[in-house]
Amino acid sequence: MSDVTTTDLYEVTMAMSYLREDMRAPATFSLFVRDLPPGRGFLVAAGLEPALDFLSRYRVEPGDVEAFAAALHRPPEDLELLLGLGFDGEVRAIPEGHVVFAGEPLLEATAPLPQAQLVETYLLNQLCHQTAVASKAARCVLAAAGRPVVDFSLRRTHGPWAGIQAARLGALVGFSATSNVAAAGALGIPASGTMAHSYVEAFSSEEEAFRAFARAHPGPVTFLVDTYDTDEGVRTAARVLTEIRRGPGCAIRLDSGDLGELARRARATLDAAGLPEVRIVASGGLDEYAVAELVRSRAPIDVYAVGTKVGVAADAPYLDAAYKLVEYDGRPVMKLSSAKVTAPGRKQVFRRPGQPDVIGLWDEDPPGGTQPLLRTVMSEGRRTAPPDRWEYARARLAHDIAALPASARTIDDPDPVHPVRSRALEELTSRVRGEIESRFFPERLGASRSGGHAGRKAPPPP
Amino acid sequence: MSDVTTTDLYEVTMAMSYLREDMRAPATFSLFVRDLPPGRGFLVAAGLEPALDFLSRYRVEPGDVEAFAAALHRPPEDLELLLGLGFDGEVRAIPEGHVVFAGEPLLEATAPLPQAQLVETYLLNQLCHQTAVASKAARCVLAAAGRPVVDFSLRRTHGPWAGIQAARLGALVGFSATSNVAAAGALGIPASGTMAHSYVEAFSSEEEAFRAFARAHPGPVTFLVDTYDTDEGVRTAARVLTEIRRGPGCAIRLDSGDLGELARRARATLDAAGLPEVRIVASGGLDEYAVAELVRSRAPIDVYAVGTKVGVAADAPYLDAAYKLVEYDGRPVMKLSSAKVTAPGRKQVFRRPGQPDVIGLWDEDPPGGTQPLLRTVMSEGRRTAPPDRWEYARARLAHDIAALPASARTIDDPDPVHPVRSRALEELTSRVRGEIESRFFPERLGASRSGGHAGRKAPPPP
Repeated sequence: MSDVTTTDLYEVTMAMSYLREDMRAPATFSLFVRDLPPGRGFLVAAGLEPALDFLSRYRVEPGDVEAFAAALHRPPEDLELLLGLGFDGEVRAIPEGHVVFAGEPLLEATAPLPQAQLVETYLLNQLCHQTAVASKAARCVLAAAGRPVVDFSLRRTHGPWAGIQAARLGALVGFSATSNVAAAGALGIPASGTMAHSYVEAFSSEEEAFRAFARAHPGPVTFLVDTYDTDEGVRTAARVLTEIRRGPGCAIRLDSGDLGELARRARATLDAAGLPEVRIVASGGLDEYAVAELVRSRAPIDVYAVGTKVGVAADAPYLDAAYKLVEYDGRPVMKLSSAKVTAPGRKQVFRRPGQPDVIGLWDEDPPGGTQPLLRTVMSEGRRTAPPDRWEYARARLAHDIAALPASARTIDDPDPVHPVRSRALEELTSRVRGEIESRFFPERLGASRSGGHAGRKAPPPP
Repeated sequence: MSDVTTTDLYEVTMAMSYLREDMRAPATFSLFVRDLPPGRGFLVAAGLEPALDFLSRYRVEPGDVEAFAAALHRPPEDLELLLGLGFDGEVRAIPEGHVVFAGEPLLEATAPLPQAQLVETYLLNQLCHQTAVASKAARCVLAAAGRPVVDFSLRRTHGPWAGIQAARLGALVGFSATSNVAAAGALGIPASGTMAHSYVEAFSSEEEAFRAFARAHPGPVTFLVDTYDTDEGVRTAARVLTEIRRGPGCAIRLDSGDLGELARRARATLDAAGLPEVRIVASGGLDEYAVAELVRSRAPIDVYAVGTKVGVAADAPYLDAAYKLVEYDGRPVMKLSSAKVTAPGRKQVFRRPGQPDVIGLWDEDPPGGTQPLLRTVMSEGRRTAPPDRWEYARARLAHDIAALPASARTIDDPDPVHPVRSRALEELTSRVRGEIESRFFPERLGASRSGGHAGRKAPPPP
């Protein structure tokens, strides 16, 4: 199964029609999140790098045409106009790691209409999933308030691929390590992990398990102390750690129970045993809320490992994102029905210190003192720069988070920043709405506030 | 990145220690879900087939050893005992499609301890994710009460791999089609999809868009009618459908607004136009709750397309699953700490008509009239039968759901079935608990109800 056929069928049926009608004029699609989920004061843009990889290699091969034809119960000859299609358009996007808000385009693609349409599903898939997970993970880093956070999510992510991405996104938002060996190697970040409860159970005693582990691993070790009785496990760990003298870097891990209280007692036991350098790692269903509560209660926990709830962004595992046509053949377009009105035209986001972002038009003059967030990252189907490294994304995020209002950064009931629209975008939206209404609903115009546009001619057909 | 390195590092550190200590005796691990999430009256076992594929091809190659060594900052020579390890054990499991409940082993693996440990992360990853998604999807089929359900989830799943699996799991639970071209081809199920709002917007009018679509697609067509004004869109669709006379199989799709009310008006318009055979498809953020409400209100919707919330199992995107050591070298073991007590020994699940399942021991005599759910699916590292087809899993699920109590099947506030434990399992649990307590906490025995075991000798070290 190629990436090209990993698509919704309707991208193919639409592209076939566009090609048949010779509708190959440039189209611009805008990918944005309509609303932030509850519990999010900001989102972290992510998924662009894999999306650009996909666009760079996109090409409809004969096997893809055959798969499309089979899905449509038609002979491959009927789809031959699709053969060889690549993506040779332009992409403007917000680089990974920037903080973003509702309505801000994460990515805009401009390409001949069939091409820009065919890539929709995959782009949404990448950007929705990764932005959702990165946004959750970033909140864990905030909650830990400077203490290291480690990714333990692989066993719970939606497949192994999502596990690799969870580790990448953890690194991007500031995690210090991952349990995922493949991801650690690929990203150049530390791998973390020592033993499970089953390890302790496989030996005749907890002490024998710890000793055996130390025999196999000459460096610093971490002992899991809650297989039987946690306080006893801490004492056993202290005894073995005292004997083996592995120096700094050793730790104990607590994985169940009242982590704050157990950590306080463990700290006392370790300190009394002359082991103040032995760290305490906590894990077990932690998310940003649990971490924040432990930090608030001054639990002596040195490292937080988060897995299950973070790797799947458990409280917001999807985003309400859309990939909307905003311009075709030079004509701005928009959707009017129900509450899902889209804004027309190619856009830019202008970030202003201490004030909400301005969503404006790509070609308008930036308001003074603002930073435009979208960059041209692909031109004529080629990346304009080498793949972005996660280290740069991490630096962007640190910068953006420092500039966030405290109300957006807070863990409990955050209040997201609401971007405003530039005057130029407001005017374009109003004009296009008037044009569509005069074209489709001339009878409404007497009562419409867009009445001034009543005499405006509908735009020429494409 | 190989599947072998897509693992938590601790599997590797534990396996290294086991090999160093020559602890290669058979170990049995049990994979089960501790508790059902809220909103689930049952789970659908899924993920076994990809898990068996993984086990069948598992082998630690030199590149994997190098990746492990890099993660541990050790020379590859230190890990050479791992080289060439495969999985040549036995797997007993509940086939995909069976309904399962809390505490029931989905899978038990018996293999030399290092092997059985190394595969933990991947097995949990597969079974947790897929059982979570299948369970959500099965509820959508129940809610639709016989109407076709279609998978539209690819744009929201956690990566493209998860999208392929979502389509597979949809087929398994009874969906009639998927929008995912690659999955449709691989599974031999219908692909579904026609047009997006952007398609309508790219033309000078809705009517022109519908006509162009019909020109490109000679068979039955589905027109999306809510780009501008839905009632007007339905009238336009009716006009074009009347002209093109494509016969049965044509449809309109509603994707926003009050779907029930819009469907009623659309049905009236279509019927008045002499198009009673044109079906109404509903989509747009649907899950089992929304589908059930529409069905209850007798909305004239013929097909439900579900995506976002189902593909990520939005209200329960993970399961509280564990992979626990239950036997090592013939000695049953268990974990005692906190609330996460595990039951020792190799297990079987006995299903009884009209009564809760019995969780018992693998080798105990089945109670009369019961069906044992776990089968030996792998022996000496090889599948005991060809890969199971999703069609068989679908049949199993249909059978099991028909036998469920209504309280477990209901959409709102379902009440899961609570399995009971067999007498043999209760006795083994009590005995092992007593042995562990006498070994670790002799001082507690005076006050313990397991006092009868006080004189029992701790089992010999492995």
